[in-house]
Amino acid sequence: MPSSRVISTPCLRCRESGETFDIREPIWRSPTTGGLLDLEWPCSFPIDQIRARPATMWRYREALPIPDEHSIVTLGEGMTPLVEATLNGSRVLLKLDNRFPSGSYKDRGAAVLISHAKSIGIRRAVQDSSGNAGAAMAMYGARARIEFEIYVPESASSGKLIQVESSGARLVRVPGDRQATSDAVWHAAQSAYYASHSWNPFFFHGTKTLAYEVAEQLGWQAPAAVVIPTGNGTLLLGAWIGFEDLRRAGVIDRVPRLIGVQSQACAPLARASDASSTKPLAVTASETIAEGIAIAKPVRGVQCLEAVKSTRGCWITVDEASIVRSLREAVRLGYFIEPTCGSAIAALPALRERLGQELERDGGPVVVAITGHGLKATEKIRHLLMD
Amino acid sequence: MPSSRVISTPCLRCRESGETFDIREPIWRSPTTGGLLDLEWPCSFPIDQIRARPATMWRYREALPIPDEHSIVTLGEGMTPLVEATLNGSRVLLKLDNRFPSGSYKDRGAAVLISHAKSIGIRRAVQDSSGNAGAAMAMYGARARIEFEIYVPESASSGKLIQVESSGARLVRVPGDRQATSDAVWHAAQSAYYASHSWNPFFFHGTKTLAYEVAEQLGWQAPAAVVIPTGNGTLLLGAWIGFEDLRRAGVIDRVPRLIGVQSQACAPLARASDASSTKPLAVTASETIAEGIAIAKPVRGVQCLEAVKSTRGCWITVDEASIVRSLREAVRLGYFIEPTCGSAIAALPALRERLGQELERDGGPVVVAITGHGLKATEKIRHLLMD
Repeated sequence: MPSSRVISTPCLRCRESGETFDIREPIWRSPTTGGLLDLEWPCSFPIDQIRARPATMWRYREALPIPDEHSIVTLGEGMTPLVEATLNGSRVLLKLDNRFPSGSYKDRGAAVLISHAKSIGIRRAVQDSSGNAGAAMAMYGARARIEFEIYVPESASSGKLIQVESSGARLVRVPGDRQATSDAVWHAAQSAYYASHSWNPFFFHGTKTLAYEVAEQLGWQAPAAVVIPTGNGTLLLGAWIGFEDLRRAGVIDRVPRLIGVQSQACAPLARASDASSTKPLAVTASETIAEGIAIAKPVRGVQCLEAVKSTRGCWITVDEASIVRSLREAVRLGYFIEPTCGSAIAALPALRERLGQELERDGGPVVVAITGHGLKATEKIRHLLMD
Repeated sequence: MPSSRVISTPCLRCRESGETFDIREPIWRSPTTGGLLDLEWPCSFPIDQIRARPATMWRYREALPIPDEHSIVTLGEGMTPLVEATLNGSRVLLKLDNRFPSGSYKDRGAAVLISHAKSIGIRRAVQDSSGNAGAAMAMYGARARIEFEIYVPESASSGKLIQVESSGARLVRVPGDRQATSDAVWHAAQSAYYASHSWNPFFFHGTKTLAYEVAEQLGWQAPAAVVIPTGNGTLLLGAWIGFEDLRRAGVIDRVPRLIGVQSQACAPLARASDASSTKPLAVTASETIAEGIAIAKPVRGVQCLEAVKSTRGCWITVDEASIVRSLREAVRLGYFIEPTCGSAIAALPALRERLGQELERDGGPVVVAITGHGLKATEKIRHLLMD
């Protein structure tokens, strides 16, 4: 996904055919092949200027694909804390991405995607997520005065839907299974902009700011590894793009190992890696506490596998009991996090075992991405930890 | 409350007798008179050093009463965004203090109070709040490994209690009314440290960091006014102390007008001001959406009245309908805030009418304190905005 060559001209590039398209076209997949698009954007990092700017993700504005500052749609997001903690016996740095306006790192992607949508004159958009991506998109859509429809399965119920509706987005409940919702939003996307967090490449050029922030917070150094709960891979791929941007610009000299974490109950990517497949394996998903990463068919699965492999990282699966134990440990230390984040903490013993020596040799800390706020799931936390 | 004279030695000072006490004594009220204590702390602001530090409230460490850095208990808090918005017809800056670890500005106070408690060797503490203060204290208590008991009325029920209990604090449910809970915690405070957000003066030396941050974010200038929802006055008094610290240190040349906002349903301070009383009036509180500021007998009411008067601010009361309208307007703009914050936005038309000319003459923006996250009250927001 991150281009290995020097990028000189911004473009959208079809992954199948290699064709390029103007970034101002209101497209979210290749108009010719129907396949995935990547965004290529030439980045620079004027460090002295960056330092003097406010502590938001927009301090990296030369690296963000929003050329016109007036198009920036912001709720004051990013530059989340990076704090030391000992969890599950490992000394790590927590990247507290639960501290976003909507309560999850998805705001990184939504802020850039919606800013782009505004800059190309989009007035109506559609999305399909009953989780954190939907909440983020609805809030930034509200800020930008873009009319939003969020498609969810009829059965969906969650506090996150209240975030969506109270922001003024229209909730479209689709009868049938998840596939029926996908079909409905694809149909709707023929007459409205599809602000998809898995298809739309601008989203990943928002989530990439996690890498910039971590590097700056470490004194413009790369960590040894970044541990990331992974479903659709929106943060994993963002991190990959971001660290590659920094490496290409000569800011860091190596990309950290990316560690993808999946629940044993739904691990199409980890299973693929075990089987040396370059594509996600077909899995039958069972229920998991880590609902934020329970994605059986990740749209950009091939890229996720490539990201972990090319950074010499690894995939780790965790079981339900270890997720709950890790959640409890974190909350009892004062970190009020969404249950899905428990998975990243639960992965630490396996990471030590699998790559401990390599990480020591590489040098630098291990960063754990904390992706969502406990306030998003108060009742669930009560149920898991107190019942 | 902020001393008008130069402060050279740290001390706790009894407001009634003027006696001083060592700051390391584990007291929360005057051992001789039983009255309120103020903390006097000599501040300095080495601006170049501050600029180079991480974006948390601890960047002002020379002004914070925690001399030993190793005692600092942190979850990576502070330096919250200051963003432009037009709300209720007024162009203002929102200080987004909903973006704290526990979801409210109370973390400013809890971080300093708990750090102090740790530094003087406290192992057990008690508190009485079924709201944001309780949640903040439990989370920082967990971080510091201080054993906490949080006293609440038997009838209390709120997602915030889940934050308290899941952090490992013990919830003590007291039969009877709010007074019974106060009596119980006072009794408990004879054998444990009382980490009270209204009595304990260290709390206010945490909330004062709002003033430092706003000033820095404005290029070390004071705004024209700061609009603050006020119940116990923990943020109002903090802001007063903070801006006075900056003025005494020569960083700013005037203290902004402090605007205290109360709900018409419970306005002991606004009523007192109307009646030119220097003490809170006795009021019969009725129910209000702004439950975070529904305090009929504010412990430091006299000081709150002094703060607003001495800064040439004013008190504004708002009705329930205007709180809901303001909440809706903010949420529809993407700001997912706790209903109590609606009160500060609802006060803007009255502020313009009462002090518009003066604010223009003073120069500088109007800052509105956004004190809590909408995720703390998702169901309530649904009920208010969507039913």
